[in-house]
Amino acid sequence: MTADALTLLTDALGDRVDTSPAARHDARADKSGHSSDGPALAVVHAASVADVQATLRIATATRTPVVTRGAGTGLAGAANTGPGEIALSVRRMDRILEVRPDDLLAVVEPGIINAELNDALAAEGLWWAPDPASRAISTVGGNIATGAGGLLCAKYGVVRDAVLGMDVVLADGRLLRLGHRTVKGVTGYDLTSLMVGSEGTLAVVVQATLRLRRLVAGEVCTMTALFDDVASAAVASAAVTASGIQPSIMELMDAASLTAVHRLLALPEPPAGVAQLTIQTDGPVAAADAARIGTILRDLGGTVTITDDRVEGERLLEVRRSFHAAMDHLGTTLIEDVSVPRSALPAMFAEIERIEHAYGVVIPTVAHAGDGNLHPNFVFEGAEAPPAVWDAADDLFRSALRLGGTLTGEHGVGVLKRRWLGDELGPDQWALQREIKRLFDPAGILNPGKVFAD
Amino acid sequence: MTADALTLLTDALGDRVDTSPAARHDARADKSGHSSDGPALAVVHAASVADVQATLRIATATRTPVVTRGAGTGLAGAANTGPGEIALSVRRMDRILEVRPDDLLAVVEPGIINAELNDALAAEGLWWAPDPASRAISTVGGNIATGAGGLLCAKYGVVRDAVLGMDVVLADGRLLRLGHRTVKGVTGYDLTSLMVGSEGTLAVVVQATLRLRRLVAGEVCTMTALFDDVASAAVASAAVTASGIQPSIMELMDAASLTAVHRLLALPEPPAGVAQLTIQTDGPVAAADAARIGTILRDLGGTVTITDDRVEGERLLEVRRSFHAAMDHLGTTLIEDVSVPRSALPAMFAEIERIEHAYGVVIPTVAHAGDGNLHPNFVFEGAEAPPAVWDAADDLFRSALRLGGTLTGEHGVGVLKRRWLGDELGPDQWALQREIKRLFDPAGILNPGKVFAD
Repeated sequence: MTADALTLLTDALGDRVDTSPAARHDARADKSGHSSDGPALAVVHAASVADVQATLRIATATRTPVVTRGAGTGLAGAANTGPGEIALSVRRMDRILEVRPDDLLAVVEPGIINAELNDALAAEGLWWAPDPASRAISTVGGNIATGAGGLLCAKYGVVRDAVLGMDVVLADGRLLRLGHRTVKGVTGYDLTSLMVGSEGTLAVVVQATLRLRRLVAGEVCTMTALFDDVASAAVASAAVTASGIQPSIMELMDAASLTAVHRLLALPEPPAGVAQLTIQTDGPVAAADAARIGTILRDLGGTVTITDDRVEGERLLEVRRSFHAAMDHLGTTLIEDVSVPRSALPAMFAEIERIEHAYGVVIPTVAHAGDGNLHPNFVFEGAEAPPAVWDAADDLFRSALRLGGTLTGEHGVGVLKRRWLGDELGPDQWALQREIKRLFDPAGILNPGKVFAD
Repeated sequence: MTADALTLLTDALGDRVDTSPAARHDARADKSGHSSDGPALAVVHAASVADVQATLRIATATRTPVVTRGAGTGLAGAANTGPGEIALSVRRMDRILEVRPDDLLAVVEPGIINAELNDALAAEGLWWAPDPASRAISTVGGNIATGAGGLLCAKYGVVRDAVLGMDVVLADGRLLRLGHRTVKGVTGYDLTSLMVGSEGTLAVVVQATLRLRRLVAGEVCTMTALFDDVASAAVASAAVTASGIQPSIMELMDAASLTAVHRLLALPEPPAGVAQLTIQTDGPVAAADAARIGTILRDLGGTVTITDDRVEGERLLEVRRSFHAAMDHLGTTLIEDVSVPRSALPAMFAEIERIEHAYGVVIPTVAHAGDGNLHPNFVFEGAEAPPAVWDAADDLFRSALRLGGTLTGEHGVGVLKRRWLGDELGPDQWALQREIKRLFDPAGILNPGKVFAD
């Protein structure tokens, strides 16, 4: 059956079907550190909506699984493609089809890189707000498929808030146009939002109508604040949120992550236990906001550095931005992604400390403290996470849920969190979501085995 | 069968089942001017989640249709309850269960009135942004069911942006908890967004977790600008949007609506053909924004009045707020609700003028010009809209779709726009949405005949 699929694909799409060992191997993995069991059947480099439709028609006819891929930068294994599966890459569909400054929208193909889109938009004073840390390498389609977040979400929203509509190809090859081009629109069910974060399990996004913002005018102020321990830093970040001032960025690094980055960048070793907040304000009252935040942080024991110089500000932010590189130097990392209500951030850090002691692991953690999204990192030797790491992760997920949080703030479920999906959704909702999946994909060819454990 | 349902309901819920002729009659209609064919079977005044579950279990067992109702202020007939149907009122479930200033969220029951919630929140410096014109009389649950909009949406978002999660009761009585309490959360499909705007066809919302904002600090500036004709006013509003300044409110009244309000309020008659923009700015740079907008409007021929006095500002806004009352004085009105991309606002007003001439009708129109949402009003004698009005409305809807717009920006489909739903969605999406409805409600008891024409 799979040989048939390959023949049909090659007949229909010619050299856009790539069966080279390198391509089939690369499609096995994303950036989660997790790989499928073997090389993909083939990689289809779709160049058009028609290519995507042709691929899906063949896949449906031959019952061949299809895994949609963008740049392969996911962190949950959602795009990992295994033996007998077609990797449908939309990376080459990367055109900007339309930019409308007057309507604050852009229509793009899914394969465009987030940063490249934003570079083009900036020339017109515009901006697509979602800013995952991967923005320089991840695609807009991937951002939509995962429901990506980033550093700016508390102030500027998540992907769901920034997508007005999209064109999708269903499993059987039919093209649907979802959503609208207007600020308001409530005709029928909101299938656009249903697609956001659906991780390639419902349909293939081939075009998106994005809601834009204008670039923020005014100055930008950046500050760091050092605290004696992570608990104090977490309390301080909660105090900033509770004050009513809305920073654009508020990031927290615990001692293990701060130390790792300082070593990577050859900066002076921070004192033992010290944690850091990095905060940025923007807009017309950025300086006044920064001054008020500085006072709050100092009152809570922080050692504060503030600058309104953009270059100096970028230098301060670089410490935070170097986190993933620093982790890569420590060993293999499993990047986690729980989110809790902002007031529960100190409690979640206490849970992480408890789990470190209970399982004998170190969990360097950074948090988007402004929105309550934590990235605890499990670091280990070798390619596969040992059982103790998964036991600790299990405890971590359950702690987040207990605190009113969620399993994943911005990375998605993929293969890595399928096990816990039912714990958060409950059995009735899990079953209902599974039925929605079946409704869109009755043959079960769209990213099977992802999100829902079979 | 319906007699059985009534007996079962009364046995289970006692005097919360209201079979008085007045209650059964009132449940026939919302504020659309459209009524069902006769009195409801009964009105259930649910006091708890358990009451809603009991009602739905009985409805499922006896295959009795259920129409969920809040305050009955809808404008699309979505809550109209007919013979043999249970009107399930959640109006008495109106408690605020939790307010968390630190997490910027509130948990409420669906029956609370929007303005009452906001009065309570204001005491803590907080605010739920959705502000339908009906805010003083409509419920939060109704706002969610319709996906309500309002005057502030371009700057502060729509209902979908302001709901984090909800508890819903399925048709068979099971309770599901959807969404999350966190800023970010992408675990599974976004069923919360699927519920927003689903008009009682998928489940019954019994609790909602709302995303709050802090009350906006700084001054408020209000201005009106008179233009010689509606085309000039529409061009001016598009110019304000294109300038990049974001007013909180930007409303347009055409000559017919302005004249009607002036008569109602006993103000001097405006010159023939004159249309008006009413604009408000808020936040730390409200005055500077207002001054810049004033210059734009004057350059385009507007006669501008600006004030930073809140009382005087409310007086200027009162003209806009009196629009519906003025329409009620003219006759029976069919309030329409198309939305177009903001740049298409002048073209849509040109279409309305064309339609007025073509069908010999007058269509007083106001628009949320900041977001492209128009409310053209068809005024006629008697209770039912004559065929010419529906022919004109049909032309209006098709014009909006042709301009890249949508059938309904904020009122919903209900019974009044079922006919055109397929025109916007296309047959494949229409069928898919119908199947989603069947998945949630296999027995077809939830608001049958609404949204989807049978």
